[in-house]
Amino acid sequence: MKQTLNVGLLGFGTVGSGTAKILLSGKDMLEERAGCPVNLKWICDKDLETDRGFAVPPDILTDDVERLFQDPDLDIFIELIGGLEPARTFVLKAIESGKHVVTANKALLATHGFEIFEAASRAGVEIGFEASVGGGIPCIKAVKEGLAANNISTVLGIMNGTANYILTSMTDQGLPFQDALKEAQRLGYAEADPTYDIEGVDTAHKLAIMATLAFGQRIGLSDIYTEGISRLTPVDISFAAELGYSIKLLAIGRQENGIVDLRIHPTMISNDHLLSQVRGAYNAFYFTGDSVGKVMLYGMGAGQMPTGSAIVADVVDIARNLVKGCTQRVPALSIPFEHVASARIRPMEEVRVKYYFRFTVKDQPGVLSRIAGILGEEQISIASVVQKGRGRESSSVPIVMVTHEADEGRVRKALEEIDAQEFVLDRTMIIRIEDLKALED
Amino acid sequence: MKQTLNVGLLGFGTVGSGTAKILLSGKDMLEERAGCPVNLKWICDKDLETDRGFAVPPDILTDDVERLFQDPDLDIFIELIGGLEPARTFVLKAIESGKHVVTANKALLATHGFEIFEAASRAGVEIGFEASVGGGIPCIKAVKEGLAANNISTVLGIMNGTANYILTSMTDQGLPFQDALKEAQRLGYAEADPTYDIEGVDTAHKLAIMATLAFGQRIGLSDIYTEGISRLTPVDISFAAELGYSIKLLAIGRQENGIVDLRIHPTMISNDHLLSQVRGAYNAFYFTGDSVGKVMLYGMGAGQMPTGSAIVADVVDIARNLVKGCTQRVPALSIPFEHVASARIRPMEEVRVKYYFRFTVKDQPGVLSRIAGILGEEQISIASVVQKGRGRESSSVPIVMVTHEADEGRVRKALEEIDAQEFVLDRTMIIRIEDLKALED
Repeated sequence: MKQTLNVGLLGFGTVGSGTAKILLSGKDMLEERAGCPVNLKWICDKDLETDRGFAVPPDILTDDVERLFQDPDLDIFIELIGGLEPARTFVLKAIESGKHVVTANKALLATHGFEIFEAASRAGVEIGFEASVGGGIPCIKAVKEGLAANNISTVLGIMNGTANYILTSMTDQGLPFQDALKEAQRLGYAEADPTYDIEGVDTAHKLAIMATLAFGQRIGLSDIYTEGISRLTPVDISFAAELGYSIKLLAIGRQENGIVDLRIHPTMISNDHLLSQVRGAYNAFYFTGDSVGKVMLYGMGAGQMPTGSAIVADVVDIARNLVKGCTQRVPALSIPFEHVASARIRPMEEVRVKYYFRFTVKDQPGVLSRIAGILGEEQISIASVVQKGRGRESSSVPIVMVTHEADEGRVRKALEEIDAQEFVLDRTMIIRIEDLKALED
Repeated sequence: MKQTLNVGLLGFGTVGSGTAKILLSGKDMLEERAGCPVNLKWICDKDLETDRGFAVPPDILTDDVERLFQDPDLDIFIELIGGLEPARTFVLKAIESGKHVVTANKALLATHGFEIFEAASRAGVEIGFEASVGGGIPCIKAVKEGLAANNISTVLGIMNGTANYILTSMTDQGLPFQDALKEAQRLGYAEADPTYDIEGVDTAHKLAIMATLAFGQRIGLSDIYTEGISRLTPVDISFAAELGYSIKLLAIGRQENGIVDLRIHPTMISNDHLLSQVRGAYNAFYFTGDSVGKVMLYGMGAGQMPTGSAIVADVVDIARNLVKGCTQRVPALSIPFEHVASARIRPMEEVRVKYYFRFTVKDQPGVLSRIAGILGEEQISIASVVQKGRGRESSSVPIVMVTHEADEGRVRKALEEIDAQEFVLDRTMIIRIEDLKALED
């Protein structure tokens, strides 16, 4: 039986501090749950000077990561430095030295996951990565274990709290994107460089991981169509509201007849749907399984303590294995590594959804008919048209159209032609509309 | 290494059929996930004649449960007959004969859980009971594992799909309770005898199990104040809507300074809160943890396939243990059985919430002032009064009041006095209002 589980933590930033806090202050609780004492043996960071606001035994601090690899008593290596390198090298090194690994690093797993999972599988160690997707929401465990009796056909997610916070502010306060972003930055919901969050890159990392697990297929970042929220305007949000929709940065993964559809883009979803009610910095994961039907998990997808909660849950999970003398009870990808198949991806051009178009055109006769004509040539059928808000003095007007289901490929072709017309004053805004009921059935 | 995991199923009704369907049709998928073949070796039921609508190998059918206990190759005994006896005897017998047990029987666990958990702990076998709470929603696993790094302070749940379906119909269609119940029965959402569902008994079984796990304390049915939905009227629901509330049969578990507050009653919750958006037969579990913050899990809380999904998830969980040669990796109650403490329960009289009262009184002068006077004597402070809908011919009028926070004990005393007044024509309706933000903080 395991006497003590020794944990070493690399990266003493926001999440590292949250993790250390839980490990230090929750010692008794964790021992009871893990079945053995859980000892934070090392905290490694280049910066050991900054005050993290809570007491840390000074002898566990080090700036030399080699001490962790070379400590024969260290059981779990927690990687919280983020990014691809040196995180990849450190994680592989920890695996080679026989340590179990826990990480929150979605970029690393979405990019080098298979290399890491394979190395861990060979070395007989565990990789815990609950914190890499959905912060404190136990969504990885739900897919790997709780829903193990299901073929999962759909994963829908609001996977980035920053983007959802900005969209919620734009909706509630009518703020332009840049103002909502600035407010989010001021409140600490967005980073100084917000590109990854607002352009969907962070969401793509998470969808790659989640879809790999849910569908049991090898899915990489290049398989995912990714479009961010920075072009959205309050006008689009208010048109959406009139149509009964909310706009969310939705991650969509769908498996049908062995073909996988993977995309992230601003999406109009009906206000009747529970996902539309996920507000502020919250995240949600909505699964459809053949036995369970629809299941949603909701919570904080980021932040010091929620992410720390997921990291420590992985530590307890591994401890419970070690106490009972078993490892790799649940393979990293839920099924044996070699069973994970290559994915067949539906090209974005072949996706069929409804569309919202906002054209910015000169206020002159014949424009609407010319646009409708071009759409008609591509067999894009218009469901409704709204034209309003024309200023008396303005020479530019927005025309909004909602289509029936159409092929993305044809839509792109039509919009290229429309945007080349002399009466078009700005690039046409397109927002895809998901009829979620149809998606889930 | 485990060669084959043999499963025997007792109870071939609705959930038994769903479970058998998944085990038979999902063989390949389950073998891949469990790490060994999962073989449905026995189906035991008194009724082997009724056609369940799918093919079952005839040699696995038996009406003699002893064959399961006496089969030395049987690994897992799935109990799906429901009720207290003979389910209790059979489960204990299975444990004594060294079988792991999976059950969906919430009544059994809420009543005899400790006897069963103790027997299983002694015998070194597992008890899987994910299906006993929340149907297919992996909420038990979430509490025992996914949220293992948290002290959980609050569990809120919509734990009964029948009651929630009826409340949703009453809200959407303005139906009286009896009509909504009949519709639910016609559609198969309510049983012929709906007492357990509509009077909160089923919810109490689930809250007892969930609160025991979440708070690590011994909680029994008698610790839970339980009130059903059968006295609600469309008038209450429409008043609630005007006030910005939905009425839900809410299960509330709260732990504060070691004292636990446990109750189930029709509850007004703000339409801003995600729980208010849980509609129809869906269930939801809303937790507050000290690290993770707020987490919600949502899905179908009952039904053949969702419940089967949870049963088979438990089977896969146990299989994964046995393949690695370990059992009782996670204790049934998440912590060692002997660490589960007795609960200190807050008496219902000491609960403080806001109240909605609907008085049914004679339409005569002085009534309102008399009611207000009695409430004032008990220090119940009125936040607002609504009196309307008075028919010209009617001698009876409803008066609706919303209070500030008040003591339940004083409220009961005041209402006893009010309801004894000659001008009161019907027992006063009371609905508790939960300010969820306050509850969760």
